[in-house]
Amino acid sequence: GNALLSSYGTTIFEVMSRLSEEHGAINLGQGFPDDRGPADVLQTAADALLTGWNQYPSMMGTPDLRQALAAHAGRFYGLDVDWKTETMVTSGATEALTACLLGLINPGDEVVLFQPMYDSYLPIVRLAGGVPRFVSLKAPDWSFSRADLEAAFSPRTKLVLINDPLNPAAKVFDRAELELIAEFVQRHDALAVCDEVYEHIVFDGRRHIPLMSLPGMRDRCLKIGSAGKTFSLTGWKVGYVTAAPHLLQPVAKAHQFLTFTTPPNLQAAVAYGLGKEEAYFTGLAAGLQAKRDRLSAGLASVGFDVLPSAGTYFVAADISRFGFDGDDQAFCRWLVAEAKVAAIPVSAFFVENAPTNVVRFCFSKKDEVLDTAIERLRHRF
Amino acid sequence: GNALLSSYGTTIFEVMSRLSEEHGAINLGQGFPDDRGPADVLQTAADALLTGWNQYPSMMGTPDLRQALAAHAGRFYGLDVDWKTETMVTSGATEALTACLLGLINPGDEVVLFQPMYDSYLPIVRLAGGVPRFVSLKAPDWSFSRADLEAAFSPRTKLVLINDPLNPAAKVFDRAELELIAEFVQRHDALAVCDEVYEHIVFDGRRHIPLMSLPGMRDRCLKIGSAGKTFSLTGWKVGYVTAAPHLLQPVAKAHQFLTFTTPPNLQAAVAYGLGKEEAYFTGLAAGLQAKRDRLSAGLASVGFDVLPSAGTYFVAADISRFGFDGDDQAFCRWLVAEAKVAAIPVSAFFVENAPTNVVRFCFSKKDEVLDTAIERLRHRF
Ligand SMILES: CSCCC(=O)C(=O)O
Ligand SMILES: CSCCC(=O)C(=O)O
Repeated sequence: GNALLSSYGTTIFEVMSRLSEEHGAINLGQGFPDDRGPADVLQTAADALLTGWNQYPSMMGTPDLRQALAAHAGRFYGLDVDWKTETMVTSGATEALTACLLGLINPGDEVVLFQPMYDSYLPIVRLAGGVPRFVSLKAPDWSFSRADLEAAFSPRTKLVLINDPLNPAAKVFDRAELELIAEFVQRHDALAVCDEVYEHIVFDGRRHIPLMSLPGMRDRCLKIGSAGKTFSLTGWKVGYVTAAPHLLQPVAKAHQFLTFTTPPNLQAAVAYGLGKEEAYFTGLAAGLQAKRDRLSAGLASVGFDVLPSAGTYFVAADISRFGFDGDDQAFCRWLVAEAKVAAIPVSAFFVENAPTNVVRFCFSKKDEVLDTAIERLRHRF
Repeated sequence: GNALLSSYGTTIFEVMSRLSEEHGAINLGQGFPDDRGPADVLQTAADALLTGWNQYPSMMGTPDLRQALAAHAGRFYGLDVDWKTETMVTSGATEALTACLLGLINPGDEVVLFQPMYDSYLPIVRLAGGVPRFVSLKAPDWSFSRADLEAAFSPRTKLVLINDPLNPAAKVFDRAELELIAEFVQRHDALAVCDEVYEHIVFDGRRHIPLMSLPGMRDRCLKIGSAGKTFSLTGWKVGYVTAAPHLLQPVAKAHQFLTFTTPPNLQAAVAYGLGKEEAYFTGLAAGLQAKRDRLSAGLASVGFDVLPSAGTYFVAADISRFGFDGDDQAFCRWLVAEAKVAAIPVSAFFVENAPTNVVRFCFSKKDEVLDTAIERLRHRF
């Protein structure tokens, strides 16, 4: 068979998590926290399960969560969002992204993608009949130029897909970069699908800037968020899309054929969570920043060239000095089997011109887990 | 725009539920129960939420639920299923169906569809590049002939999509009908995607027969089930696929780009639920059978020609005698606004040659709700 979606391999995150389990490794591959998440959010979900509605909610999401999404956009970004026409809840950000791409791309449309990119982007762009045009960011600084955008945008550009903060590069786009992207989007009368699942996981006192908040971009952007990342509950699979009505409507049409709705008790808990005090959100980032520092220092101490991490759950590291012939996949297979630490080869996030000397580690783990991982690495290097 | 999935209307179920709310109507449109679901299943989900794992489970589902699915297939249908290679959990049956179609259909493949059909089937078949071939079942008996299948199957047939028990017709395929379908599937070396979400909601002492259980069909069928329907918790969006490894593998590839995983606490509760004693499952069918009888008698008493219902949450009724010029959509719009009872026009389940004199009522509601609905109808007719 050659069906459009089945010609791809199993996602690298699942592959490495399975290998990690097989080898009894510490899983610093797939990105998820290993703590329990906020107790009050969990309790809200349990209460809603036992006393609330467990049948189909509206396909757009529960009014409570949609109102909370609009309030969140106002509070954090000064965005004025109408919950009734500009918000939609999905079963995770992966579904949100798939709904956006399938709802907006017409066969033959060009789609600008930044490499490295999350591995579901390209299969779905292709399924929708889109033609990918790549902008390649290069380690260690993951920057791009005006000339890169000139080469990727064209009169056929329908949309650009941007992940900010960027997994696996741990890059947070600065205002100048966002302005450059906004300029190209507007010049080409295009759209931007903004995967901003790590919006609250930005370090060193910086703040996430939604592309949607830039002048002229309010009605050109679809902003995707994730309760899994914002509340450290990745298994809940509650995502959301915020966009102008004319953009959200076609996306909702796709959504109804993908999952249709999302468990209402989890929606109730996320609605509650989004209203938490400022300290929760700053605490989330501060806690993860400390873990970033802990793992980065540990990796450096055992010989890795650690790259900067400005956000996300991840830190990338150069492995050139360890040999492995510039084969990050071989390095990760060796690492999980021999050092019993799972990581993700960054080449898995590239379609062409992949660097082969960078691997990604996830630091959203208990301190003792990070420390044990470093001890295991020290033992092998 | 003309993106592949956004050219469709909003699903009739959502449209009627919104109208129902606007008019303060009793919602006998969209199919969902209005009771709370089994208390022990709910409690299991709450316990798992508060004490269990809330991060990404395996993309194939939790081992507990997958083992329970295999055991369920053995216990109810005598099927020998290997949980590790033949089961997958999805975020609802809609996602399961979409994953099956996107994972298996190659552009240009023909897909045999029985009308009436659930409204997500055709958009997804088309998205996958499939070419639909219809078999039209006709009220009141919803039967089909060998000649109908001869006309629909061809050397290009990749798969047939069958919904049994059939929503909205409330038809349960008998063994002779299934054998006829199986003969054609095998003769054309094709597959069958079997949407069996109402497998436990079959009345009058009959038992559901999975197409997969027929001779020669074990490795040609993908069997889809739904915890929402089996445990009266439609908002949970936990579905599952059972299929031979060579069929499940490509479907899993599609699944990873649609939702990837499903909340683990809900999976834990469904695993528990599938192990419940026989009385639970027979009680579910018996309770709904009594509701079918209650609503059917009420509809007949106010003048509807009620069609037989052998399974599902639904009973269909002929509206010819009420006028409305054979326009079931107009009838339903009138009914929700004037009688304040929502129903679904059965023409919404057809692409061509739709009957326009049949509407569908959902009876999975509290007795007093059904009685009030009938009183409202009596008032208008
Ligand atoms: C959906 S599994 C992948 C989790 C994740 O975002 C990552 O590891 O990059
Ligand atoms: C997914 S909403 C539709 C529910 C249902 O199965 C129906 O009403 O037919």
